[in-house]
Order: sequence, then C-alpha cells, then structure tokens
Amino acid sequence: MSELTRRGLIGAGAAGAAAGAMPGVAAGKRKRGRRRRHADVVVVGAGLAGLTAARELRRAGKSVVVLEADRRPGGRVWNHPLGGGEASERGGTFVGPTQDHIIDLAKALGVGTFPTFNEGDNVAYIGGSRTEWSDTGPTGTAPPDPTILPELATTVMELDEMSKEVPVDAPWEAAKAREWDGQTLETWIRDNSATQRYRELVPLATRPIFGTEPRDLSLLFVLFYIAASGDETHAGTFERNFNTREGAQMFRLEGGSGAVVEKLAASLGRRLMLRHPVRRIHQRGGGVRVQTDKLVVKAKRVIVAVPPALAARIDYSPALPFERDQLTQRMGQGTLTKVAARYEKPFWREQGFNGTGLSDSGLVTATFDDSPKDGSPGIIFGFVGGDKAREYERMSKASRRSNVLAAFAQFWGDEAKNAEEFFDTRWPARRWNRGGPVGIHGPGSLLANGRALRAPVGRIHWASTETSTYWNGYMDGAVRSGERAAREVLDEL
Amino acid sequence: MSELTRRGLIGAGAAGAAAGAMPGVAAGKRKRGRRRRHADVVVVGAGLAGLTAARELRRAGKSVVVLEADRRPGGRVWNHPLGGGEASERGGTFVGPTQDHIIDLAKALGVGTFPTFNEGDNVAYIGGSRTEWSDTGPTGTAPPDPTILPELATTVMELDEMSKEVPVDAPWEAAKAREWDGQTLETWIRDNSATQRYRELVPLATRPIFGTEPRDLSLLFVLFYIAASGDETHAGTFERNFNTREGAQMFRLEGGSGAVVEKLAASLGRRLMLRHPVRRIHQRGGGVRVQTDKLVVKAKRVIVAVPPALAARIDYSPALPFERDQLTQRMGQGTLTKVAARYEKPFWREQGFNGTGLSDSGLVTATFDDSPKDGSPGIIFGFVGGDKAREYERMSKASRRSNVLAAFAQFWGDEAKNAEEFFDTRWPARRWNRGGPVGIHGPGSLLANGRALRAPVGRIHWASTETSTYWNGYMDGAVRSGERAAREVLDEL
Repeated sequence: MSELTRRGLIGAGAAGAAAGAMPGVAAGKRKRGRRRRHADVVVVGAGLAGLTAARELRRAGKSVVVLEADRRPGGRVWNHPLGGGEASERGGTFVGPTQDHIIDLAKALGVGTFPTFNEGDNVAYIGGSRTEWSDTGPTGTAPPDPTILPELATTVMELDEMSKEVPVDAPWEAAKAREWDGQTLETWIRDNSATQRYRELVPLATRPIFGTEPRDLSLLFVLFYIAASGDETHAGTFERNFNTREGAQMFRLEGGSGAVVEKLAASLGRRLMLRHPVRRIHQRGGGVRVQTDKLVVKAKRVIVAVPPALAARIDYSPALPFERDQLTQRMGQGTLTKVAARYEKPFWREQGFNGTGLSDSGLVTATFDDSPKDGSPGIIFGFVGGDKAREYERMSKASRRSNVLAAFAQFWGDEAKNAEEFFDTRWPARRWNRGGPVGIHGPGSLLANGRALRAPVGRIHWASTETSTYWNGYMDGAVRSGERAAREVLDEL
Repeated sequence: MSELTRRGLIGAGAAGAAAGAMPGVAAGKRKRGRRRRHADVVVVGAGLAGLTAARELRRAGKSVVVLEADRRPGGRVWNHPLGGGEASERGGTFVGPTQDHIIDLAKALGVGTFPTFNEGDNVAYIGGSRTEWSDTGPTGTAPPDPTILPELATTVMELDEMSKEVPVDAPWEAAKAREWDGQTLETWIRDNSATQRYRELVPLATRPIFGTEPRDLSLLFVLFYIAASGDETHAGTFERNFNTREGAQMFRLEGGSGAVVEKLAASLGRRLMLRHPVRRIHQRGGGVRVQTDKLVVKAKRVIVAVPPALAARIDYSPALPFERDQLTQRMGQGTLTKVAARYEKPFWREQGFNGTGLSDSGLVTATFDDSPKDGSPGIIFGFVGGDKAREYERMSKASRRSNVLAAFAQFWGDEAKNAEEFFDTRWPARRWNRGGPVGIHGPGSLLANGRALRAPVGRIHWASTETSTYWNGYMDGAVRSGERAAREVLDEL
C-alpha cells in the first residue's frame, strides 16, 4: 500500500485521474465540490468483512471501490508492530478449529498459523487467593475450585444443550425464543446456580468474550453465540468458544492477524480509500450513490461492512425500513479495552506458566501470551471489559499502566512490573469503532429485529461479523460475512 | 410562520441577507459552498425540548438559531388538522396533574386546557370476551376481572413501593440498582405473579406507555419511569402515569398539543430553519461550529435537543466520550404507531362509553377519545405498540385500516367501521423520529451509561424528554429538559 493511499490522499483530488486507469473504475468530474467515481460495487468499511467482500468481487471480475473512515484498514483487526516483521494484536488475535474461512483466507494470502503458546500452568487470582493448575487436567481452562466446579460444569452443559435448539440463521425461530429473549444471562444464572460465589465469577466469561456484564446479554443471544461457535458440521459449544486447547484461541497468525489485512489492502491499491467516512447512501434509478465529504461513487450495489451501530450513522435515502433502523438503535458494541505489556522475554514461561491468567478482582479479567512465534520479545495481553473497562476509562494514564502491571504481577510476580512497553487499545473510545469485540443483543432485540440483520434493502447489502451465522463476533465470522455479501451481490449483477 | 420558513428555504441562500437584520444573529459569507451564520447558541432539534430552550435563551437576551431536520417543527408533537382550528394529535396529546411545566408554558402562550372526555364506561376485549365498567369504580382503569385483579393490585403497589427507592436524578444510585438493572420487567413479573393470564396482560401497559414488550424493559428503568411520574412535591406513581382520572391523560390542549409548537415556532421566525439536518458538531477554540448540508453556524454553545438514538447520528469532533457514545448505541426509541379514525360525531358517547378501550388480542391495545372540545367531529385514537407495531408494519395499507376499524368495532359496535377518515402515524418509520414515545433503557444501560444522559460535553448540552428527571417520555419532560439545558447554558454565557 502506498503512502499516498495510507494517508487517504487519493480521492481528495490528486490521484483521481490515475484511478481512471483501473479497469472498470472510472474517475469523473467534480459535482458540487465532490469528485465522482464509478464502480460496480462500493464497499463501506475496510475491516475483514469489507476487504473479503472486495476480494471476492474482484475475483469475479467486478470493479470495486472500498471506502474506509479510519486512517488505516482493518477495523477491529490492528497490528501493533514489534519490529522485525513481528506484531502484537490490538484487536482480533486468535483462530481455531472450525474457523476455516479465516484460516483458508490467511493461507491463500501466504499468512501461516502457529500454535498459541500453551505450555505450563494457568493461574487465577480469585476471591483473594492464587491458584495454579494445568489446563490439561479435568477442569480445563476453569480454575479447579471445588466450591464452584459442579455449578460451572452444570451450567456450561445446560447452555450447550439449550444452544442446540437455536438455529444459527434464525435464533428468533427457536421454540423457546420468547422465553429466552425475555431474560438476561444474569437472570438465568441466578435461577440456575446455587452459590453467590459462582454467580460472581460469571463476568469472568462475559467481560472478555462479549465486553459486557451478564446483565447486558439476552439469554437467547448467548445461546445463539454458543451455537455459532462451530461450523456446518460441528455443533457449537461454549468450550470451543472460550478454550485455548482445541478452542478459538488455539492458533495465531504469523506476523499478527493484521498481516491478513495488510495483504488484502495492498491488493486493492487505489481502490481502497482511507479517511473517507461515508455520510450518505442514496438509492435511485437502478443504482446507488455513496457519498463521502469529498467523493461521490456511483455503483450498481453497495455492501455496508461495518457494525450495525455504526451503519446507523449513515444517512440513507430513501430511509431504511422500520425494523432495520430499530435494530441498529439497540445493538450497541461491547465495551472492551485491550491492554498489553512487552518484556525482553516471556519470563513466565521459565516459571512454568503459559501466560493465561484469570482474575475476579483486578482490572484485567483474562490474559494470554501474545509473544511472537520465536518468543522474542515476550508479550502478555489482557482483556478489560464491561464494568472494568468503564473503571479503566476513568483512570489517569499513569494509573492505567500501574494497575495493569500490578494485575500481571499478581499472576507472575514482580518481574511483570518491569515492562519495556505498555500499550492499550480502548476500542469504545475509537471514533470509527466505538466498541468491541461485537455488537450485543440485549433482551428483545433478536426477536423484534433479528430478521433485519442480513436482509438486503434494495441495493444495499450488509456484512460485518455481527451478520454471521457462524463465529459471530470473531474474525472467521467477518470473513464469512464478506463472502456471503459478495455472493448476494454477484447473484444480482 | 411564513411559508418560506416552513419550506426550509431560509438558510439555503435566499433569505440569508435578511437574517442579518435580526439582533445578534449575523449572516456571513459562503465557505466551501455553505452559508455561514453566527449566534450565541445553536439548538439542534425543534421539538418541545429545543423550542423551549430557544424560548428561554431569547428571554434572557441571547441570540439563537434552531436547526430542525424535518420539514415541520414539533418532533413527537404533531397536529393532524380537522378544520376550523381544531386538531387531533398524531403524537404527544395529554397533560395532567404535576405536569406544570407544559401546562404553564401552554398558558403563557395562550393555549388553554380542557378535560379529556371521560364520561361513561371503559370497555375491554380481553381473553375473547367483552367487559364494560366505570373507571370511577374500585378498579379504576383496570378491567374488573376477578381472576387478575389481586395480582394487578399487588404488582402495581409493589412497583410503586420499589420506585420510591429510585432517585429520579440518578437511578443508578438506588441501593438495589444492580439487582433491578440486571433483569427485564418480564422476568420480574414472572417471578411476582401467579397466573399466566395475568402475565399475558402486562403488554397492555407496556405497549402504549413505552412502545415495547415487557421483555425490552430494564426493571430499573420501569421503576425510574414510575418515580418520574410526579414532581418535586408529589412522589411518582404508576397509577398517575396510566390513568385518565387524576392522571397523565386528564387534560387536553385547546387546538391540539401542536398549538404550543406552532406558537413557539412562530415566535422564532427565521431563527428556526427547517429541513436542516445537522451533520456535524465541531468544538474548537472556545466555540462550536454546527454544520448542515447548506449552512455552518458558529456559536458559543450548542444544545442538542433530539433523542439519544438520533443524537448518535451526528458526527462530533472531537469524538464524544466513551460512555456518552455507548449510551446512544443502546438506547433505542420505543416502537409505537398511533392510529385514528374520524367520525361525524362521537357516537360512542351516546351509547354511554368514554372512548377508552383495552384489548389483548387486536392490533390496538388502548384507545382514547380525542375529539375536539365541542365533540365535533368525533375522533378515536389507538396505540399500536411493540410486537403489534411490527405486525402492523407488515400489513398492506388497506389491511391496516380495516383491522383497526374492526378493533374499534369490537369496542363500540359496527358503527365504528364507518369512519370518515382513517390516519396513522408510524413513528418508527419516520426518518427524523425513528420511534416513540421515548428512548428505552434495556438491562444494564442506566447502570453503565446513565451518567452520560445529561452531562454536558464541553460546549455541548443535551435536552429531550429522555434527559428529564420528571415526566420522562412526556411533553412535560421535554419542556423541563429544555428549561434545564437553557439554564446550564446561561450559567456559562
């Protein structure tokens, strides 16, 4: 990707003429101060969903223009460079079994996978005491606390069972959809657990996975999310969602997940226009007109590949249907901040730890080893979600660093305080993301408006991981959604 | 209000020079194709909140420009003219005891009140059978069904009691806020009722009052809403909220509630600019710049007087804080459609009915007599909310009319089918409203982000009925919010 493209200068005028040299993408005259372009399809948003859709369309011989609001492509996928071609991920990181769409795409682009470092013990700091255990034991990722294990085993099994009754392509059609969408996960746990101690541990799952507290989640949405943690031939399970071993955290991508984005973006060249927030989409006379502050692109179809909450901020004419608009008013992005520390080497490995830590009290709920394949430097990242993310937001910059490193020290001792670098990614504060990891359905949302998640509106098609039937909220879901939206468009062109 | 203003032509160029003649409101040159103006304060949105704020600011000698996206002022207040200066209301209609802010404002503008017609019997069509009763009896507005009355009495009393523990200015500080914001109203009713029959009747309250099903509502929000159904010297009660007699439906406004809007708008003259959706608000260098497609207004402060879900669709720079943005991603507008029929005369009155009907099965959940003071013509309006509003949306235009009139006929016989006119107002389908009657908090919303409802962000202040501590969701709350936002601004100017 050229520096010109990266800085979003293309489309602001300078390179408009050059665009005419691309097959099927024509540059035109200015109209009311905006430069005009033409393409078969406009893609709004250069996250994994949009970039995948653009790739599929180009492979089918269609011309595309991809408009991205931010100054970088990738959306919720974003490398933090470590030097030497290595990176730590600020957003989506892992891939795992049944996530073949992202894995195949990475492979096709020459990005390999490697196992997440997972030798040694997990560690937890829960109820004020510290526990170490091997995740190859009977409790897996869960701490071997005898007071909560029976409840944990029962509720996870029950949720898995219930999730089998939820169709991933239409959760609102589950036989018990009304019952399940009428309550929060908190309510269901309250009704199906025996001890307060266990109930207090449930945020350990919801903060990293959804960026929420249990109260924010519709039970039906949680069951859908579990059902979606699989593929067409493997029923989803909660364990596959939250585990490293044989789960969604099993593999990493060489050079960081951002390497996939960089390759997709580079192949688009000047078809990708950064710093071009789309303001309006007009449908009229057999086509669409997609407008940014500086540009109008006329096309046959448009794929809006941003989360529903951000898609709501585009002005559509004619106005979108009732259900689609109401969906986007309610489906906010999760509240997840990611924090990370860099060390000369992954010192926890030498102590017999795998870098996975869980805490019910500190800012950081769950951590992972995110070091490069060769273990140099050592990187730990942590999830700060839900109420903890709001607490983090109110802290000074210095407190954030010291609190996070103190939390890491509870897991692996004082050496954790000697970080070479500390960096955080406050997704809800980022103007063009406004949250993560995924859009959240509270009670009633799927039942009322779920049908509008994917249904095209005239010549507008919807992508983003929130629209995916499998691995919703994951990179795999984003890739799947881009592929599906591209197919929809190709069927019509 | 002049036709020019009504058609939004002012500010598009033609009348820009004339604007310079207004004290304190200066018109400037075009910049990048947009005309420029100056004022002390910009108000975004010409609903009751924004119009009230503008009035207060002008009374204090400040210059204002009010920018409204729609082609009419009023927001959720909108008259349907009946001829002869009479009107039926498409949106907010009634006022009642403790709603002194809207009543005083109306009085100051020369708009009088009159009692809602309430002589004769209520009628209900519930569980397939029809009941008539006087609301002066012991059950009030509730049908005298012995199978549900004990539960109804108990739950309303309990909700009233619980609501006393909710501070209207900070519901998230209630001692039990975490418990109450962790569940839906549906869950609470399930846990506190004995019969399925009673549970099925709860939507009769939530559809007209909130435009939702019980599953969509946080219990904490419902308790706040009840607490807010009063004033500084009268504790809120659910009964005051839903009753006509001594309740929020007790009085009407002469010439329709829209008369208040029309007078406020007329007094603003060219300071009110219709068809000017605000696209961006920049804060920089000690002021704000508020931008529409055709205009930039520079001011010292801005009051954004639109519901949170619509405020989210403005692009702010610098970007809004984390909590404020997340609030607006989750707080969708209710799903309420209003339907109405006009008859030569209010024939139900002659049959001994007051025009109030309740139904658990038909499209229309609750009706009211909305005839002019002199009873000519006769008007019945009905609320179609929540699931029923979505059902309505999927019907053909002809089915909508015939279904609504059939529902009216279940209450008052076949004469109801002979309407001279039928009209509906599908609030969620309206581009610049996108729902009603109020923004809804699902579980977790108030606890996580409630603090951001009113907190100014630099030079941006927030109004709209959703920000009001009393009569949230009502016209009185809108007026209160406009007064409060104006005070905030005046304290700073």
